[in-house]
Amino acid sequence: MHRRSMDSHILAALEEDIPTIDHSAIVVADEDCRASARLICKQDGVIAGLGVFERVFQLADSGISWNMHVKDGQDICRGQILGVVEGPARGILSAERTALNYLQRMSGIATYTRKMVSRLAGTNVRLADTRKTTPGMRLFEKEAVHVGGGVSHRENLSECIMLKDNHVMLAGGVGAAVFRARRHAPFTLKIEVEVESVADALEAADAGADIIMLDNMSVADMRRAVNLIDGRALVECSGNVTLDNVAEVASTGVDVISSGALTHSAGIVDLSLKEFRVMSHG
Amino acid sequence: MHRRSMDSHILAALEEDIPTIDHSAIVVADEDCRASARLICKQDGVIAGLGVFERVFQLADSGISWNMHVKDGQDICRGQILGVVEGPARGILSAERTALNYLQRMSGIATYTRKMVSRLAGTNVRLADTRKTTPGMRLFEKEAVHVGGGVSHRENLSECIMLKDNHVMLAGGVGAAVFRARRHAPFTLKIEVEVESVADALEAADAGADIIMLDNMSVADMRRAVNLIDGRALVECSGNVTLDNVAEVASTGVDVISSGALTHSAGIVDLSLKEFRVMSHG
Amino acid sequence: MHRRSMDSHILAALEEDIPTIDHSAIVVADEDCRASARLICKQDGVIAGLGVFERVFQLADSGISWNMHVKDGQDICRGQILGVVEGPARGILSAERTALNYLQRMSGIATYTRKMVSRLAGTNVRLADTRKTTPGMRLFEKEAVHVGGGVSHRENLSECIMLKDNHVMLAGGVGAAVFRARRHAPFTLKIEVEVESVADALEAADAGADIIMLDNMSVADMRRAVNLIDGRALVECSGNVTLDNVAEVASTGVDVISSGALTHSAGIVDLSLKEFRVMSHG
Amino acid sequence: MHRRSMDSHILAALEEDIPTIDHSAIVVADEDCRASARLICKQDGVIAGLGVFERVFQLADSGISWNMHVKDGQDICRGQILGVVEGPARGILSAERTALNYLQRMSGIATYTRKMVSRLAGTNVRLADTRKTTPGMRLFEKEAVHVGGGVSHRENLSECIMLKDNHVMLAGGVGAAVFRARRHAPFTLKIEVEVESVADALEAADAGADIIMLDNMSVADMRRAVNLIDGRALVECSGNVTLDNVAEVASTGVDVISSGALTHSAGIVDLSLKEFRVMSHG
Amino acid sequence: MHRRSMDSHILAALEEDIPTIDHSAIVVADEDCRASARLICKQDGVIAGLGVFERVFQLADSGISWNMHVKDGQDICRGQILGVVEGPARGILSAERTALNYLQRMSGIATYTRKMVSRLAGTNVRLADTRKTTPGMRLFEKEAVHVGGGVSHRENLSECIMLKDNHVMLAGGVGAAVFRARRHAPFTLKIEVEVESVADALEAADAGADIIMLDNMSVADMRRAVNLIDGRALVECSGNVTLDNVAEVASTGVDVISSGALTHSAGIVDLSLKEFRVMSHG
Amino acid sequence: MHRRSMDSHILAALEEDIPTIDHSAIVVADEDCRASARLICKQDGVIAGLGVFERVFQLADSGISWNMHVKDGQDICRGQILGVVEGPARGILSAERTALNYLQRMSGIATYTRKMVSRLAGTNVRLADTRKTTPGMRLFEKEAVHVGGGVSHRENLSECIMLKDNHVMLAGGVGAAVFRARRHAPFTLKIEVEVESVADALEAADAGADIIMLDNMSVADMRRAVNLIDGRALVECSGNVTLDNVAEVASTGVDVISSGALTHSAGIVDLSLKEFRVMSHG
Repeated sequence: MHRRSMDSHILAALEEDIPTIDHSAIVVADEDCRASARLICKQDGVIAGLGVFERVFQLADSGISWNMHVKDGQDICRGQILGVVEGPARGILSAERTALNYLQRMSGIATYTRKMVSRLAGTNVRLADTRKTTPGMRLFEKEAVHVGGGVSHRENLSECIMLKDNHVMLAGGVGAAVFRARRHAPFTLKIEVEVESVADALEAADAGADIIMLDNMSVADMRRAVNLIDGRALVECSGNVTLDNVAEVASTGVDVISSGALTHSAGIVDLSLKEFRVMSHG
Repeated sequence: MHRRSMDSHILAALEEDIPTIDHSAIVVADEDCRASARLICKQDGVIAGLGVFERVFQLADSGISWNMHVKDGQDICRGQILGVVEGPARGILSAERTALNYLQRMSGIATYTRKMVSRLAGTNVRLADTRKTTPGMRLFEKEAVHVGGGVSHRENLSECIMLKDNHVMLAGGVGAAVFRARRHAPFTLKIEVEVESVADALEAADAGADIIMLDNMSVADMRRAVNLIDGRALVECSGNVTLDNVAEVASTGVDVISSGALTHSAGIVDLSLKEFRVMSHG
Repeated sequence: MHRRSMDSHILAALEEDIPTIDHSAIVVADEDCRASARLICKQDGVIAGLGVFERVFQLADSGISWNMHVKDGQDICRGQILGVVEGPARGILSAERTALNYLQRMSGIATYTRKMVSRLAGTNVRLADTRKTTPGMRLFEKEAVHVGGGVSHRENLSECIMLKDNHVMLAGGVGAAVFRARRHAPFTLKIEVEVESVADALEAADAGADIIMLDNMSVADMRRAVNLIDGRALVECSGNVTLDNVAEVASTGVDVISSGALTHSAGIVDLSLKEFRVMSHG
Repeated sequence: MHRRSMDSHILAALEEDIPTIDHSAIVVADEDCRASARLICKQDGVIAGLGVFERVFQLADSGISWNMHVKDGQDICRGQILGVVEGPARGILSAERTALNYLQRMSGIATYTRKMVSRLAGTNVRLADTRKTTPGMRLFEKEAVHVGGGVSHRENLSECIMLKDNHVMLAGGVGAAVFRARRHAPFTLKIEVEVESVADALEAADAGADIIMLDNMSVADMRRAVNLIDGRALVECSGNVTLDNVAEVASTGVDVISSGALTHSAGIVDLSLKEFRVMSHG
Repeated sequence: MHRRSMDSHILAALEEDIPTIDHSAIVVADEDCRASARLICKQDGVIAGLGVFERVFQLADSGISWNMHVKDGQDICRGQILGVVEGPARGILSAERTALNYLQRMSGIATYTRKMVSRLAGTNVRLADTRKTTPGMRLFEKEAVHVGGGVSHRENLSECIMLKDNHVMLAGGVGAAVFRARRHAPFTLKIEVEVESVADALEAADAGADIIMLDNMSVADMRRAVNLIDGRALVECSGNVTLDNVAEVASTGVDVISSGALTHSAGIVDLSLKEFRVMSHG
Repeated sequence: MHRRSMDSHILAALEEDIPTIDHSAIVVADEDCRASARLICKQDGVIAGLGVFERVFQLADSGISWNMHVKDGQDICRGQILGVVEGPARGILSAERTALNYLQRMSGIATYTRKMVSRLAGTNVRLADTRKTTPGMRLFEKEAVHVGGGVSHRENLSECIMLKDNHVMLAGGVGAAVFRARRHAPFTLKIEVEVESVADALEAADAGADIIMLDNMSVADMRRAVNLIDGRALVECSGNVTLDNVAEVASTGVDVISSGALTHSAGIVDLSLKEFRVMSHG
């Protein structure tokens, strides 16, 4: 993740939480008071976002430093001490909530992604995220998917042509949509098209689509579509993929399975800053 | 919600999704092509964020207009048509995902909040949110809680003194913490203190706290604390409140129950833009 | 004061004063020329804003360093040397005016506040500022009041409910206004109400206001109101408080006296950068 | 004043005063409630900044409209009704303080400037402001000086070369400083130099300065300097000019008198929004 | 081009040219003075950027309106009147230079592009721009290439993988570079690789590159490379393409010719605002 | 150039080129991989913008450092190695194009300016730039003119009054325009007026213009105008000045020759980053 983008997001989040002054921290700690505390895991999962977490504290007060015992992508378990912080007490108190808000969400996404990916072990199928992310949080959420073992679908509307049902309708059919894209879009962009039937999948492959996305199709139909496409395009599928059915979906021979739930329904991993101790009063 | 804050958040979200150009929309629709589409509910729930949803489209293209059949706070059910949009096809296609990302999340929060609040029917207990929100999304998430029937806890660190476990530790006790706050904080701010035992709750009330927050205490202890505080302070409680236990918690006599899950674990309501139709080609 | 807010204000002020290039500095000093100068007091007063003053120079050129002989809050007198600066001559010349513009105003406010506060010696009455600040300068002006011994009223409209004459009129009376606020406003906010008569003060106390502000009332009436409120609410008064009458006003038993003049009519303390000397030509 | 610069300043001021929500306005007025109020003068003076004042309300809520009875530059007197506002009650309440903060300060400056200018009646001497303005407020304060009848000195460091005592010291004398400026500065900029003696004034004129600024010189010396300069440069003087001595200073024959007090010590004109009335409840 | 991106660029350009006040316009025209003027072509070429040109005036003063006689992409010739403007004289004077600075550059690029494209008539070869654009001006310059008949290469580093000489060196060869990209980059992005020999072109095709860019190769070698690639990848070539040799280069069978000169060396088309006339004095 | 202005321009340019991620750099280099490369000159010229060039790399990755063998203003020749860079390979690859885009343009301007200035050797005539710069790039382009030996005309509309043909028309003549400017504009600004005939030049001088700009006049007329103005004003001329005629134009006795071509038609100097070598893999 770009340091600049990350910083500007974090600074806005800190401003959201501290528009003027954090009086609570000021009344209990002198300006010179230094303290330590521990980051405690309260729920099993996969940790993700430690760099963001540390950066929140550093941007709140450059005198704060973390000594982390884990790295992004590691499994963590309830009760585990993940790291120790040291620095000005006021800064630690003021940044705590904002930092945890990032870390808990990113870890929740990584945890859920890891579970899904583990069901794909032994296959070449990749698990990809979507654009169903929280507005403003895309870079963070996609990074968490990556930590959990998933791969990134297009970052935004500009980085790949993707012709979905509504685009296809406007163009008058799958083949026509791909044809228009090949003719009018920059030659540097791949063309992906969403199809809902085996026939449309074949039409897409014949029209020269680079990626064909099978949307909400049955396992049997997906298998047939993969056979008919026959390597002429990358095949992606999407739609109600769950922990229970992901392995079966993968068995159809698709190259990529994408899932919006990775970023919109993963929940959080509960984490907490505890054992606050005063180290010196300046 | 302030129009200005909302707009600047939405503009950033649109820029996140369209850093340069949405080629997919351009290749299938001419600049003059106008279309209509319907907002379809794919999952039962409570709708929230319609104003934001419409504003995304309007900021993407001021020529887009929505005719909504529902209002924020209404129950919606699977298959229901929630509204109809009309306007330039390119703008509708480009704004769709960003608009739905707001609406699905806000509706998810309102839906979960409504469920929790319904368990409090017949009591005077209020259900409040927390600061455990997605960085940058606080105004939107708190608005969704409000739509669902919840109330707002402090908006940020500046709007109320809140002395949590770490603050209390630094001050050397609940009473000492409240005392310092009364002495040093602006006289215009309320002082809330978090306690973990009945004894501390009493100490807080004696020290003159305005709000006492019972953190992760047993139902029995909460009942005792409420009795001892005896109206001298507002009583709030928090910690692992669920649909199953919320009514029992309310029966303790607390004034407010707060829950981080409202904003960090509510999930989404599935919504979709469908039945795209061309109206004119300019 | 937050470093971030302070920095962004200072950078805008420097840009206001140097939109493109400071040719005057460039023509008389080479890029490598280093100089020193002294900050001289030209008028008795209380110094405030030294941190801001130094930061202006540092943001203009990080090679500039100040050695200050005084601290915020100290009395300074005409002719006194307050500090010595050393660094690149161009940067010192370019930042001088902007830095002094902050320091002179903040010192003016601290000086006037100190004078008012000294008339309250021996009482528990606090002197508070208001929102009658210069647009954009509130953080700086409130900091100066604090340095002078005053306390901060609410920082902005979001941090406390305050029902003034116009609000009361809209609600249909003092009691009705307080009642509406207790019912609809966040439970984390205090409710202050402005009253203009003894009867209204009593109505406010009965309605449960947290703070009652006696607006432009006679000393006799204020005394009566304080008696009738009888500790049920904090009592503030405002309106044409001057150095001459502030002690008498305090004698009424109010808790807080607030005064807009602290920030809008304090004037400046005259300060100057003198005895510029070249130290090296690089 | 540029609309863009003005707007961005006002929006920042509104954000300073309303970081999240103005609960006070919300609890007493419904969203649809419309009201009217009057702008009342509480102190004699010259009004300035009405455009800014109106714009604050318009940016807070575009549905608010003012009907003003006076124009910038008019004398106003205590008790006079200056205008009537109509619009959404919430917006009027939320914008009131910020709008008055601009108007009171700008009117204070215009009032003081008008008094000084009136002492120069019958002469050709112009009264100019300086760069001793409140950081961030320069455009507003210089506009107020203009309304009061003063003229603008350079807007900032980039718009004119001005060699002050510290510049002259660095260059090694008045003549040397002017010489360096003529050689190295853009030929499109005027060169002003500050002198403290008659001899230096003569040296400045001989060196070809465009403007010579007599700093803190006696009336007799100024008269002599004007004679010796003899029309070769514009002559400005500055330093402790007051209402009492400004006419005498003008009699020396200088072209321009500049005064920092216009912007840093003018005080305010007391104004108020009163007679709030509900017009409809939506 | 996005209205938002365009507007923020133009507003910054206007601020660059008018940091405070345009005194020249103010001294010759009253606020109410309305005027008209004509946009005159002083050099043959292709016009591009009329939308930007008009928008500059509109953002400077919304009361200005243009009546254009030509459209983007039309040939214009010396002496031709391209349009007529009407509106407040001050705004027209203040915006003139900034508006022309955009229009002259964009027209220069469109003119040069049109000349190059005309040499490709009768072939299927497309002429593409590069990332050799003026910092900050990319959207405008690529739009001008489009108006002139060229196509857009990738908009920026994020929208396509492109492995240039330095990337290939780091990866240890053309094949290795393509292999790493296929393995590690998002599957939604095309992979382009730059090669300098026929052998490397073959290696790139074998490795599965989507686009192969022949860099500075001889016409004979390009012909050979095209044959060996044999439709397995799109073929682009670049390097010192001129009006004289572009047709011969196209004859090699490449799909795309790209040229940095389109945006960095096209020069301007001379245009002017003349025949200013006062229409009314308000 | 101000560091702040330069930095914000560069950061925007980097964002323009890397809206999300530079995958090309990521796939070929590990995060720890360090590399070196050389800046090679591919075309004779004058180098300008090295500070900007280095700053682009530093802002992309603060671990990158340059060792330059030349300084701004030096002649460079084809094949010359201008400097060596060392640092993280990813950062070098990502910043290369943006850095070169600045350097090539600035060097192109310096090269062309140097050629023009060399024709003025032995005279006192100065060569000045104009406001015909690329929107947003003015500071960089004027810096390049300065490096090439030119001088700066006014930086923007605010820093000097300049009455051009359209202003003169509005005012009703050259004399009237100068008269209005002397009366209404700030006394700190010079007044320049554009004239197209000898008679107008004389009228301008009589009216007291500080600078008279002879626009598109014949050499003979310019000579006559210079004689008639006779030192009462600085004389500038402009209009189709080329390498061929600049010496003759200078012989007329004008003080300054200004040329828009310096910034709008100079072209670039071709430069390249080559000989990329891996230094370590972390």
